[in-house]
Amino acid sequence: MTDDAWTQEQIRAHIDAGLPLVPLFNIDVLEAAAHTASVRLGPGPHVTRPGGSVAGPVQFALADVAIYALILAEKHDAMAVTVDLNINFLRPAMTLPLIATATPLRMGRRLFTAEVRIVEASTSKLVSHATGTYALSGAA
Amino acid sequence: MTDDAWTQEQIRAHIDAGLPLVPLFNIDVLEAAAHTASVRLGPGPHVTRPGGSVAGPVQFALADVAIYALILAEKHDAMAVTVDLNINFLRPAMTLPLIATATPLRMGRRLFTAEVRIVEASTSKLVSHATGTYALSGAA
Amino acid sequence: MTDDAWTQEQIRAHIDAGLPLVPLFNIDVLEAAAHTASVRLGPGPHVTRPGGSVAGPVQFALADVAIYALILAEKHDAMAVTVDLNINFLRPAMTLPLIATATPLRMGRRLFTAEVRIVEASTSKLVSHATGTYALSGAA
Amino acid sequence: MTDDAWTQEQIRAHIDAGLPLVPLFNIDVLEAAAHTASVRLGPGPHVTRPGGSVAGPVQFALADVAIYALILAEKHDAMAVTVDLNINFLRPAMTLPLIATATPLRMGRRLFTAEVRIVEASTSKLVSHATGTYALSGAA
Repeated sequence: MTDDAWTQEQIRAHIDAGLPLVPLFNIDVLEAAAHTASVRLGPGPHVTRPGGSVAGPVQFALADVAIYALILAEKHDAMAVTVDLNINFLRPAMTLPLIATATPLRMGRRLFTAEVRIVEASTSKLVSHATGTYALSGAA
Repeated sequence: MTDDAWTQEQIRAHIDAGLPLVPLFNIDVLEAAAHTASVRLGPGPHVTRPGGSVAGPVQFALADVAIYALILAEKHDAMAVTVDLNINFLRPAMTLPLIATATPLRMGRRLFTAEVRIVEASTSKLVSHATGTYALSGAA
Repeated sequence: MTDDAWTQEQIRAHIDAGLPLVPLFNIDVLEAAAHTASVRLGPGPHVTRPGGSVAGPVQFALADVAIYALILAEKHDAMAVTVDLNINFLRPAMTLPLIATATPLRMGRRLFTAEVRIVEASTSKLVSHATGTYALSGAA
Repeated sequence: MTDDAWTQEQIRAHIDAGLPLVPLFNIDVLEAAAHTASVRLGPGPHVTRPGGSVAGPVQFALADVAIYALILAEKHDAMAVTVDLNINFLRPAMTLPLIATATPLRMGRRLFTAEVRIVEASTSKLVSHATGTYALSGAA
């Protein structure tokens, strides 16, 4: 954690280099700013289940990356770790891309909690909702 | 859902063919029987974060597959879908393989709930705990 | 579950008579309509902990009642039961009344999922956030 | 948080005095020791819903108190606060007393996570399962 703001370019580069699932699943950071971050899941060979819906673990990854991008923008804390994450799968996600948008619920000194809404970009339908809590490193 | 029991071989084959993340992440179904199912995460190029710990979404996938294998063994319901899953990351998972063991909490007609413990095989340390609820298809 | 809409008065009367914790904790249904329901926690002898903050189980009750009022308004299903509820306590709730507002995330045939935001009325500060899933009776 | 162990008598007295819902709901601390704590819900005017099942918020209170008793026994930290709690209601709780047993999942310096199983004493049937995370005060 530093007091210097990260640019969106720095956040994107940090996430692409640090989280191998991001390029593997074709996830892009669209925005990472104060109070909101959004990421997009594009088409790829690993994301769908038979029948064509997006697999749960891929949606989990999308929510996790969205919150991590938000923490980088708000707290500049690359060492933050996920404490717990609760995800509700509301309806099958049938069309890509998906957009996951994270907004903060708690921005504490030690704990950061956010909610994430995942929608189909083409229909705006809500496909899943997550809330996650992260431990800030407080270290750097 | 049928009344015919699936053998472990049928469950393994169904999961390998139906869930692309299972071979991608090097997940193996060790056991899928009445009242318990366990799956193993072996080494692979996609599972670790920098520093060497196993990424959260990979642990989520492991928990999800363990519960799905349990549902196949208990309910023979290949069309069951995840309603929600809550996962607590308790400490960094630093050595592979990981073993995830699912046990049932509710085996209803419509809803199936299970808990999952994920441990490092070499140390037996608990690295994460999940509870998940699935909607049974009741269809076939 | 019936096709006849309940009036807000009927919903209030049903909740007051059926849930003993509602009068005990001094909870009032403010609104129960399509797509939103809100309930208020007033002062009372049972709701605070030493130091003055509102106890967690009281906030849980508030969230549970808000979602139940929403289900009565949307689905007219008095026999709906809570499947699971996840609540994040974000900061101490120090001033009463609290207002809990529930909005639907999934309105299925069998499952109903909603999120709830609990704020202090005087400060508008968010003190907790919950998501809950309910099984609809599909019976009546 | 102090380094002096609390006796079970001290834990009981602290909980009875500090949590008004404990006497209101007729909750007793049965045991609070290293690695396990159990509490009992006895009969009372406020705990049941029409039809006779134990209300969800009362079960939530039971789980919350069980974990708090465990934290007092393990960490001697009276200022610990609930960060989040996820509870699955598995089947109706129809006979009292209920017994809630908490066991630790994480006993960190800052965060304490436990799981709770709530059973009917007379039938040993599991009626609900919870996992909760608490922030330790680290203060005293």
